[in-house]
Amino acid sequence: MAKTITSRKNEKIMHIKKLGASAAYRRECGETVCDGRKLLSEAASHGIEIKTVLFCGEEPEGLVAADVCMTPRELIASASPMVTAQDVLFSCAIPEIGAEEDIAGSCIILENIQDPGNVGAMIRTANAFSIDTVALVGSCADPFSPKTIRASMGAVFRQKIVRTDIDGIKRLKNRGVAIYGAALSERSADIRGVSLENAAVVIGNEGGGLSEEMLGVCDGEIIIPMNADCESLNAGAAAAVIMWEMRRTKSYTG
Amino acid sequence: MAKTITSRKNEKIMHIKKLGASAAYRRECGETVCDGRKLLSEAASHGIEIKTVLFCGEEPEGLVAADVCMTPRELIASASPMVTAQDVLFSCAIPEIGAEEDIAGSCIILENIQDPGNVGAMIRTANAFSIDTVALVGSCADPFSPKTIRASMGAVFRQKIVRTDIDGIKRLKNRGVAIYGAALSERSADIRGVSLENAAVVIGNEGGGLSEEMLGVCDGEIIIPMNADCESLNAGAAAAVIMWEMRRTKSYTG
Repeated sequence: MAKTITSRKNEKIMHIKKLGASAAYRRECGETVCDGRKLLSEAASHGIEIKTVLFCGEEPEGLVAADVCMTPRELIASASPMVTAQDVLFSCAIPEIGAEEDIAGSCIILENIQDPGNVGAMIRTANAFSIDTVALVGSCADPFSPKTIRASMGAVFRQKIVRTDIDGIKRLKNRGVAIYGAALSERSADIRGVSLENAAVVIGNEGGGLSEEMLGVCDGEIIIPMNADCESLNAGAAAAVIMWEMRRTKSYTG
Repeated sequence: MAKTITSRKNEKIMHIKKLGASAAYRRECGETVCDGRKLLSEAASHGIEIKTVLFCGEEPEGLVAADVCMTPRELIASASPMVTAQDVLFSCAIPEIGAEEDIAGSCIILENIQDPGNVGAMIRTANAFSIDTVALVGSCADPFSPKTIRASMGAVFRQKIVRTDIDGIKRLKNRGVAIYGAALSERSADIRGVSLENAAVVIGNEGGGLSEEMLGVCDGEIIIPMNADCESLNAGAAAAVIMWEMRRTKSYTG
């Protein structure tokens, strides 16, 4: 029989609410917060340590090590960082994040992508297309914030993610990895003509593009060819086409 | 010298506010509302009839036929349907929308895609990849709502858009156009092996997929192959990869 929480002042409610509100508190605790049964089963099945689970309705099963508490729907809503709360809200350990030396095989580098929805969706796409590593450079959104996790549909729990900086990208280049920037320039090559199978491709934010320092490191720039009337795709669509092209010749069986 | 509006009760302010809030009022007036200098120049340069322009700061130029009014920033904000108002807000005539018989060449069919952000982003992608027609079937978001226009970055003013229904898609099929549904089924074919150059591809919403009636009309289903751990891409990413594949062999010069 699960424990029951009835008070808004309960320390677990306060803790989860604070995890949702504060990136600094998440870092301090090494914990984050996610919502919904689907993300809970994703996290648990990928070996993420589940800490506290608040639920209403049916009790989630198979969470032996976690602190599972029946909680009225309105208390879950008050603790949830989401506008529309679900019937499960849980905290879990933040997975380890790697560094430059962990990058191997195909890699997508996100530079200064600040919107958690975009970062989450790009991690989801990277995982779908078996991109080995997603590297975050500059001021990207926290990959383990509640909004990023939700936008990734749990892909953050399955995908190798590293955090590095321009110097890390230089070291990657010195290891022999070709670095391409998704950017319009005089030397930009049509993405259909570039071999990207084991390359690293850098995607910047929709407004600002890539930094000068990053462009200085790139071996070349690639563009997605398009209708001349049209300036650009949105960031998520561009990232999807780029990652698809990186892995287009792959066999996805098994 | 532009006219000046100073009252929240001004009839133009009230009219624009109502256009932003009510789809029924937009239909009744045959007008919609958009924000920002970029969308204004997109609309004007594509021959859209600009009705009323509220601005603060520099006066937008070249709008001879429009009613251009200098308006304090806080009045623009009060009339704007957007959370963060820009320094230009304008109303314009809703472009003509076609029907099934206007579909020619490559076509993307959106079925029951209710989120204006998704519909707008897909129209933007379709336009970028020179897809001839975007057809809306079922309960799709209004392509000329303020949010859709913004998400499309003005592509709704350049893109041929039609509204039809299942019977329209049947007529299209009877005209000899191959109809493919983006859906997982026993007979789904890897998108890399299907010739889509002059086909129509149907995309459904992320949760529900395609309707049974629509699947009944399709000549076949196609899937984007992906990592077996991963169920799906988000709607915008999937649409981008599909449209890219439809036009991948195209030359975009000129």
